[in-house]
Amino acid sequence: MITTRPQPTTRKPDTAIYERRESAVRSYARSMPRQFNKAEGAWMHDNQGGRYLDFLSGCSTLNYGHNHPVLKQALLDYIAADGITHGLDLHTDAKAAFLETLETVILRPRGLNYRAMFTGPTGTNAVEAAIKLARKVTGRELVIAFTNGFHGMTLGALACTGNAAKRGGAGVPLSHVAHEPYDGYHGPDVDTADLLERRLSDPSSGLDAPAAILVETVQGEGGLNSASPEWLRRIAAIARHHGALMIVDDIQAGCGRTGGFFSFEGMGFTPDVVTMAKSLSGMGLPFALALFRPELDQWSPGEHNGTFRGNNHAFVTATAALRHFWGSAMFQADIARRGTLLERLLETMAAEHGLSTRGRGMMRGIDLKSGEIATAVTAGCFERGLIIETSGAHDEIVKVLAPLVIDDALLSAGLDILEICIREALAVHYGVAAE
Amino acid sequence: MITTRPQPTTRKPDTAIYERRESAVRSYARSMPRQFNKAEGAWMHDNQGGRYLDFLSGCSTLNYGHNHPVLKQALLDYIAADGITHGLDLHTDAKAAFLETLETVILRPRGLNYRAMFTGPTGTNAVEAAIKLARKVTGRELVIAFTNGFHGMTLGALACTGNAAKRGGAGVPLSHVAHEPYDGYHGPDVDTADLLERRLSDPSSGLDAPAAILVETVQGEGGLNSASPEWLRRIAAIARHHGALMIVDDIQAGCGRTGGFFSFEGMGFTPDVVTMAKSLSGMGLPFALALFRPELDQWSPGEHNGTFRGNNHAFVTATAALRHFWGSAMFQADIARRGTLLERLLETMAAEHGLSTRGRGMMRGIDLKSGEIATAVTAGCFERGLIIETSGAHDEIVKVLAPLVIDDALLSAGLDILEICIREALAVHYGVAAE
Amino acid sequence: MITTRPQPTTRKPDTAIYERRESAVRSYARSMPRQFNKAEGAWMHDNQGGRYLDFLSGCSTLNYGHNHPVLKQALLDYIAADGITHGLDLHTDAKAAFLETLETVILRPRGLNYRAMFTGPTGTNAVEAAIKLARKVTGRELVIAFTNGFHGMTLGALACTGNAAKRGGAGVPLSHVAHEPYDGYHGPDVDTADLLERRLSDPSSGLDAPAAILVETVQGEGGLNSASPEWLRRIAAIARHHGALMIVDDIQAGCGRTGGFFSFEGMGFTPDVVTMAKSLSGMGLPFALALFRPELDQWSPGEHNGTFRGNNHAFVTATAALRHFWGSAMFQADIARRGTLLERLLETMAAEHGLSTRGRGMMRGIDLKSGEIATAVTAGCFERGLIIETSGAHDEIVKVLAPLVIDDALLSAGLDILEICIREALAVHYGVAAE
Amino acid sequence: MITTRPQPTTRKPDTAIYERRESAVRSYARSMPRQFNKAEGAWMHDNQGGRYLDFLSGCSTLNYGHNHPVLKQALLDYIAADGITHGLDLHTDAKAAFLETLETVILRPRGLNYRAMFTGPTGTNAVEAAIKLARKVTGRELVIAFTNGFHGMTLGALACTGNAAKRGGAGVPLSHVAHEPYDGYHGPDVDTADLLERRLSDPSSGLDAPAAILVETVQGEGGLNSASPEWLRRIAAIARHHGALMIVDDIQAGCGRTGGFFSFEGMGFTPDVVTMAKSLSGMGLPFALALFRPELDQWSPGEHNGTFRGNNHAFVTATAALRHFWGSAMFQADIARRGTLLERLLETMAAEHGLSTRGRGMMRGIDLKSGEIATAVTAGCFERGLIIETSGAHDEIVKVLAPLVIDDALLSAGLDILEICIREALAVHYGVAAE
Repeated sequence: MITTRPQPTTRKPDTAIYERRESAVRSYARSMPRQFNKAEGAWMHDNQGGRYLDFLSGCSTLNYGHNHPVLKQALLDYIAADGITHGLDLHTDAKAAFLETLETVILRPRGLNYRAMFTGPTGTNAVEAAIKLARKVTGRELVIAFTNGFHGMTLGALACTGNAAKRGGAGVPLSHVAHEPYDGYHGPDVDTADLLERRLSDPSSGLDAPAAILVETVQGEGGLNSASPEWLRRIAAIARHHGALMIVDDIQAGCGRTGGFFSFEGMGFTPDVVTMAKSLSGMGLPFALALFRPELDQWSPGEHNGTFRGNNHAFVTATAALRHFWGSAMFQADIARRGTLLERLLETMAAEHGLSTRGRGMMRGIDLKSGEIATAVTAGCFERGLIIETSGAHDEIVKVLAPLVIDDALLSAGLDILEICIREALAVHYGVAAE
Repeated sequence: MITTRPQPTTRKPDTAIYERRESAVRSYARSMPRQFNKAEGAWMHDNQGGRYLDFLSGCSTLNYGHNHPVLKQALLDYIAADGITHGLDLHTDAKAAFLETLETVILRPRGLNYRAMFTGPTGTNAVEAAIKLARKVTGRELVIAFTNGFHGMTLGALACTGNAAKRGGAGVPLSHVAHEPYDGYHGPDVDTADLLERRLSDPSSGLDAPAAILVETVQGEGGLNSASPEWLRRIAAIARHHGALMIVDDIQAGCGRTGGFFSFEGMGFTPDVVTMAKSLSGMGLPFALALFRPELDQWSPGEHNGTFRGNNHAFVTATAALRHFWGSAMFQADIARRGTLLERLLETMAAEHGLSTRGRGMMRGIDLKSGEIATAVTAGCFERGLIIETSGAHDEIVKVLAPLVIDDALLSAGLDILEICIREALAVHYGVAAE
Repeated sequence: MITTRPQPTTRKPDTAIYERRESAVRSYARSMPRQFNKAEGAWMHDNQGGRYLDFLSGCSTLNYGHNHPVLKQALLDYIAADGITHGLDLHTDAKAAFLETLETVILRPRGLNYRAMFTGPTGTNAVEAAIKLARKVTGRELVIAFTNGFHGMTLGALACTGNAAKRGGAGVPLSHVAHEPYDGYHGPDVDTADLLERRLSDPSSGLDAPAAILVETVQGEGGLNSASPEWLRRIAAIARHHGALMIVDDIQAGCGRTGGFFSFEGMGFTPDVVTMAKSLSGMGLPFALALFRPELDQWSPGEHNGTFRGNNHAFVTATAALRHFWGSAMFQADIARRGTLLERLLETMAAEHGLSTRGRGMMRGIDLKSGEIATAVTAGCFERGLIIETSGAHDEIVKVLAPLVIDDALLSAGLDILEICIREALAVHYGVAAE
Repeated sequence: MITTRPQPTTRKPDTAIYERRESAVRSYARSMPRQFNKAEGAWMHDNQGGRYLDFLSGCSTLNYGHNHPVLKQALLDYIAADGITHGLDLHTDAKAAFLETLETVILRPRGLNYRAMFTGPTGTNAVEAAIKLARKVTGRELVIAFTNGFHGMTLGALACTGNAAKRGGAGVPLSHVAHEPYDGYHGPDVDTADLLERRLSDPSSGLDAPAAILVETVQGEGGLNSASPEWLRRIAAIARHHGALMIVDDIQAGCGRTGGFFSFEGMGFTPDVVTMAKSLSGMGLPFALALFRPELDQWSPGEHNGTFRGNNHAFVTATAALRHFWGSAMFQADIARRGTLLERLLETMAAEHGLSTRGRGMMRGIDLKSGEIATAVTAGCFERGLIIETSGAHDEIVKVLAPLVIDDALLSAGLDILEICIREALAVHYGVAAE
């Protein structure tokens, strides 16, 4: 039987070392002032005996939960045997196993013919590599990204990111990217794919011919906006028609979070390039890749590189994760079922408070219509032992990113806490007594 | 007794999976077509029983050798105990231990007062963070970098990198950076610090007031050019005088490679910002940080972030490495001695062939004056079981990046192989019979 | 009585000198291969005795016709008296007279309080100065321009121009400008001011806070698209609300072309900055200025300059033009009446052929829905002695830019020629016999 | 006999209209607070009867003096005959005459085969066109300009300009240009052509392959630095070797100012592109052109344009100037002689005060080593009726830009005033009693 009760601690830990030595840029540590020391599955433990249910999952980096035993054992065995830890981009058994597993478990069954590029092991590096490649292949500079898109913090990826506070950190104007309205951005009556098509077809629109259209199927940081398959197919067709590459940034929405291994499965189009990171290693190890059609693989050797581009520990855990979770249809069926459960529970909760939900699969949230309220909700959750965060332009969406493998009872238990905190926060905000 | 004889295999492994599924961007795997499966200390093993002496060390990422037993055990213990693997930037025991060790073992003994920013765990992310911060703090855009500098592949860091082939991969013009001549670039008679000072002091020089001066003390990728302490002090003074931050990119030259933990120790200046990566985790795990004076820590929470910015496995191995190697003066003394040995052996070798050496500490090379010859040398070495690579604008420098902990006998054995291959390559090239 | 019959020549002149010595960039000379030597009012004469009715008017630079006798005499007198021709930005009688006339004849009656900046004497220089000032005053970089906007050919103004062929000439990516949809761009059901407001109000839209919104009230080069007063008021309000300057580029639409001296008169908003050129000197002499509210006049002396920024000949003719045409209400009433006549005649013509018209005041055209047809029309007109040109993203609009002072009979005569040529071109194109 | 005595007025004119209506960007009018109304030859007259000797000549725009009678008469005749004033880029008699005269009087005798592009009629427009063309022809982005270079105020040309105050006016970072040290910039012992060659030949220098090298032979605004023929030939060779166009910006130094019609005549190299403006029209009318080798004339029709690109009045006066001054060898001989006289007089003056001179031909100045002193000198001169200005990064050079046609006695008289003012200013500054 699963114990579903979080047991948060109330004593704040000593943070002097962080104040003295860690940059003020730290963020999550501020709203969750505990020092963690252990984690397994959906649980995180702090060093004062507290236990927290994790509905953040490293922003979808821990889709299989913390320290999944299968992955953990694979890694322990590998390290114990002195497997290659760091090998630049040299061939290793671990890399070969990963590529073969990717091919047989993921690509072939989905009829996809991609090559894998191991970029530096962070999402932003993968995005940088993807847009470099698009610019190289097309000989064009402009990348079209979308409102509320989030793609990373290095200069090339940051230019594609919509968030003004992040953009402001650049210290230089961000160039060579245009942000166009995402699906639904201008309400249900405006087809934003039409707007884009109109501008790209007009030689006097001021929008230069693009190298790439870079899109998330669900905007994880931007508020869980979810694009319809029709709209995504239109974008794919527009990209093809105008000689641009379609890049799907699947860093947050991929690896099962929205149901399939790729978030665009079954939608009737195939991206030219896909970027992956976060849950790709399965266990939270730094790992990223860009996948693209072989014809696009026009790199010169070493034209884009990076010291940690072959993170062999991540190869090991990623291979184990692909085999364990994606080797049969069971996992995917389980996510589908659980995603429906989550949808139902969230919808009920939202309906009760006159709110609406967002997202798809196991990547869903509830729109509190106010960053202030949403932040009060997540703070309340944390006090009750639930780790959960906000999303959206105004931090107004409370985002449920539970592990995909979470037990249904735990999922419900966490949502119960969420419901209580929403009720309280709304009551405080609107001056109504909570029951 | 140490066995010093490499035993390379001659059979090339099956590479079909790489050709089918890995991007053409792979580079080292082309000149070293083996599949490796195990490594310890200075040795790498391939999956057909071959054994290779590693004088590349992951481009200085494996300063303590492969899978050092102390680090390995610390990591095994941590994983076995379900320590936090991935925690975004949440406080963890592993992070606190790292920060405390950094403070007590590294910063305090050196009289340095820095704060640590855990950027995305690759060198280029650390450089991006450093130049963002410099631009934010100064309100200026221009970064001054140097000829032959190498700082990374993402758009902001790539703009600081000198190499034309890498720059060409950007697909957009690289902006907001000026490259000025490095120490010695224009020969011994031209003081390039003077040139820079002249231009920055002239309001009509066309060189805008800089946010930062970004410099490597030894240019690892750019040909092992080594700046003199005098020149670096001048650069530090120029930066200060003109209101710019001095950023030392210590990603390759730091962590003992040039002798001290920082490559600038004992030179009489303190950088405003230092970037670290490569050997920082000790075991080759992705890890990077930017260090800066507390007054410069003007980040807003989350203004620069990244999913893998808290790589707890790397905290663990980095902490173990700091304690094990830097906790006493022995290691540093050992590097100093071994660096002198390397210098002597390389100088002798160079003198014999009318060549010259480059570099400092355990980061030295020999100038073959031709990329063709140097590549022939490294190819010859690999056939004899020595992994070694070139550097420099024309790949003309053969670069010895042996593990810092290498046994002297092994170091000599490797250099013997190098000497044979140089002799052969020169003979072939200049048509002289090798002895 | 006015002679209204053009008498074109059929012999093409010797163009050897142009082929030998003039750049291939020349354009109008290709479709109108005559050598002109004389002009007065609405007429141009070639050197073989031909006479052409001018419905191009130097792209609205000759609103008062060629060599208007009042302006001509003023200039002759000034030159004969050795008036200052070139005086950099020194005070001259001519400049003082212009400023005083601008104040009394134009600004005061309209309740406008602007300062005049004499930029280099071309429209693009005025636009460059305007956006520089906006960036300086606001401390922001981004300028919002509109689809189909045309603002000039120098790098700053070209970035604001929508036309892809012109943009392509830059040879570098054009930065720091976003093009948003103009009024009506997405059809009657989409309010593009709403789209803009939505994006600027969203901190995650990827659209940075703008320094300026740069807009033409009628897009002269972009196809005679005419913005509604309501939309322009919205844009003005949006600019104000978001801390941006509203710049009206009145270079082509100003100086009476659309009715008032400024094209935005009577619309209920006041731009922060207005750029003027083309017909400002009245006689076709190079002259441009930027007008702005005194509070915005934050230039340092000489911060933006230019050798010909004080074109005193232009001061003289501009002063004469302001006094002669704008000193009483008669001229404006006359334009209004003639604009209505033009509207009626064009509407009739369009209706007959199932076409539509565009534009406002004396700045109107007819949409041939095909650049090929429109070019056939203008070629046919030229053969019959009518100088007229196309506009629009596809050159699909035939644009009537007759002198504002043209006699009604001449206007009708020119439109008769246009009607014949449209009939012929449509017949040829659609295979129908022309009557 | 020539009257050589200036008669300045002391009463400052009423400047209320300027303060009320002219932008604060005005500059010369501040240090020369008079209102001028008439000018001929070397003389300017104010509206209170004052007379000033003009050693500024519109910054070398009035090389033939104010309102030269031959040019003036040609213009009066043209206007009186209703010659085309404004004709966009249509062929006109005036344009044909200019092109033919340019060919026969200037190009053929010098063995130059250039095509003429009539850009917008200001120097900055010509520079913009030149660098656009270079980028288009080469497919590269980077332009190499030089320290202290001055090329204009629009965004493309401003990026090539060295002056920090002007650059700061841009409000955006200036990109795609690198400033390299001009001849002599680093003192007599550093060959800056060598420095440039070294960097361009090094694939890791960070200096991208350039589209163009843009250079003035004498830096008019940058302090009258004069490049040696040897250095310029090296630059020409470097440009050719590296596939870049050499653009000579002859806007200030051309039209006889340094002796020949082009400032590079007789130096043993031929630029790929030459930009001209300022004195090109002869009478101070706005006029500019770019000249380039026919093979480079790869413009599409209209790819770069501008409303005033055919300033026919300027064609008329420019043609008259070419014929009158350049039709025989006399004028050039006269400049040479007078330039030598100027050199001798300035050298004597400089020697007396321990100062040095700068420049070439009739483009010379004296280095006061302090902007404060130099400004005191020019202020003193103005009080005595001599219009003269400073130049250089610190405004430390007093620049003699007398009309080329000035009578020797007048030249001497002006220099006498200058000498007195230098003596006084030095005395005040260094606390020595003036004699």
